[in-house]
Amino acid sequence: MTKEQLFEQIKQKKSYLCVGLDTDIQKIPKHLLTFEDPIFEFNRQIIDATKAYAVAYKPNIAFYEALGAKGWESLQKTLDYIPKECFTIADAKRGDIGNTSGLYARAFFDKSASGLDFDSVTVAPYMGEDSVTPFLAFPNKWVILLALTSNTGSKDFQNLPVGERQLFEEVLVRSQEWASDEQLMYVVGATKASMLSKVRSLAPTHFLLVPGVGAQGGSLEEVSKYGMNKTCGLLVNSSRGIIYASTEENFAEIAGQEAKKIQEEMAAYLDEYLPKTA
Amino acid sequence: MTKEQLFEQIKQKKSYLCVGLDTDIQKIPKHLLTFEDPIFEFNRQIIDATKAYAVAYKPNIAFYEALGAKGWESLQKTLDYIPKECFTIADAKRGDIGNTSGLYARAFFDKSASGLDFDSVTVAPYMGEDSVTPFLAFPNKWVILLALTSNTGSKDFQNLPVGERQLFEEVLVRSQEWASDEQLMYVVGATKASMLSKVRSLAPTHFLLVPGVGAQGGSLEEVSKYGMNKTCGLLVNSSRGIIYASTEENFAEIAGQEAKKIQEEMAAYLDEYLPKTA
Repeated sequence: MTKEQLFEQIKQKKSYLCVGLDTDIQKIPKHLLTFEDPIFEFNRQIIDATKAYAVAYKPNIAFYEALGAKGWESLQKTLDYIPKECFTIADAKRGDIGNTSGLYARAFFDKSASGLDFDSVTVAPYMGEDSVTPFLAFPNKWVILLALTSNTGSKDFQNLPVGERQLFEEVLVRSQEWASDEQLMYVVGATKASMLSKVRSLAPTHFLLVPGVGAQGGSLEEVSKYGMNKTCGLLVNSSRGIIYASTEENFAEIAGQEAKKIQEEMAAYLDEYLPKTA
Repeated sequence: MTKEQLFEQIKQKKSYLCVGLDTDIQKIPKHLLTFEDPIFEFNRQIIDATKAYAVAYKPNIAFYEALGAKGWESLQKTLDYIPKECFTIADAKRGDIGNTSGLYARAFFDKSASGLDFDSVTVAPYMGEDSVTPFLAFPNKWVILLALTSNTGSKDFQNLPVGERQLFEEVLVRSQEWASDEQLMYVVGATKASMLSKVRSLAPTHFLLVPGVGAQGGSLEEVSKYGMNKTCGLLVNSSRGIIYASTEENFAEIAGQEAKKIQEEMAAYLDEYLPKTA
């Protein structure tokens, strides 16, 4: 998917919501366990209930890998079920030496090899340029590079001073030498919305994937106010706050209501903060 | 597996060789493609031919994921086939926020969930403490943390000055607050063998997983001389140099010969560099 196509969809749906499909077999409603593939059945119902309000879906790959080969099959069915206009993110946080990252690219981007055909994959920056660039060989596919994450451990290394910058800022600056904003986005943790201005001064035109609104505690208004650029430039993720809003039989309906609430808030922020010249 | 058991095996086999099972369907001998599971068949023959000389096996997970659910099944069969006395490494370079790293731990350590039961997993440090510690909840399982990798991109961030240290040194120091040398090892790239003294001054008692001897060009003698400690403290990996030494029908025999050559060199270095007081 191109940046332009993504922005088009954001304008149409008046939403920059990404639904995180962190589907845990131990947390889904019990009545689903009688289905042949409970994980897929859960995702199918969540997708149906939220697709009018979401522009992106983000399965966290750990949840599927934890179930081995069977989990991988659930992931494939889920990806096939997501509407084609939605942007898909393999939240995998991969990263390896060049030839090996090329294989991860095959895993997530090459349907003929792995059965999967995501639009993007999250990548950890620690191994540097050649761990990132193999993903970019696939046209219109994206790397979403970890810059500033929202977990407590993010301070251990990401905030360390490296010369006049912090490490996450160095990641933002250096990685722009490797790819343009047509193939590169950044993960920026919303719990540090005050840092969004700083991020925007270093990466003004890129899309940012913002986790941590909702269960992880960020403020959607702050993120929108300080993070939005002229192509919106934001995908804000909510996982648990939507998919586990209820564990009753009507879980999907409740998830849809939660997604709608966020979408309506986003519609207002798009009106307020999207530069009118766009 | 405990550190003591690993050292015992090293002394018995007079080897600290790890064979990297980077098994690429596009590179294995063509005659294997008629087997139902060519990846497993290749691995089976490689394991049979090298198990007398190797103390560890390290499948790089990217190679299996690139084949989707089917690859995951080949991985499981391979792991089940590796002799129980050998140390097994899921070279996955994972790392995510706490609850998600817990799911990756399930994926690689909890056979009842995923079908896999590795002794260890490689983890990227960028997300900090809570991305590492969930793996340590599994007794006698190990995290092998990326410190200094051997690829060209390693210089992009790992060598950056952070105060008086470089970033990889900071990783070595901070991470020791999270786990002992009974559950924590480090990846240290052999192409920078001159840095091994520096690493040993910061992490004197830990095991180091050293990739990059062979195809990636490190010197085994230098690594052994500067890296060995009183429990050996080294696992030196060779992947392509062994498993793709020949692509003819006798590939396994040739792989065995290559492994034996390295083991014999290692036996000599153990005699020379292992502290006699051990």
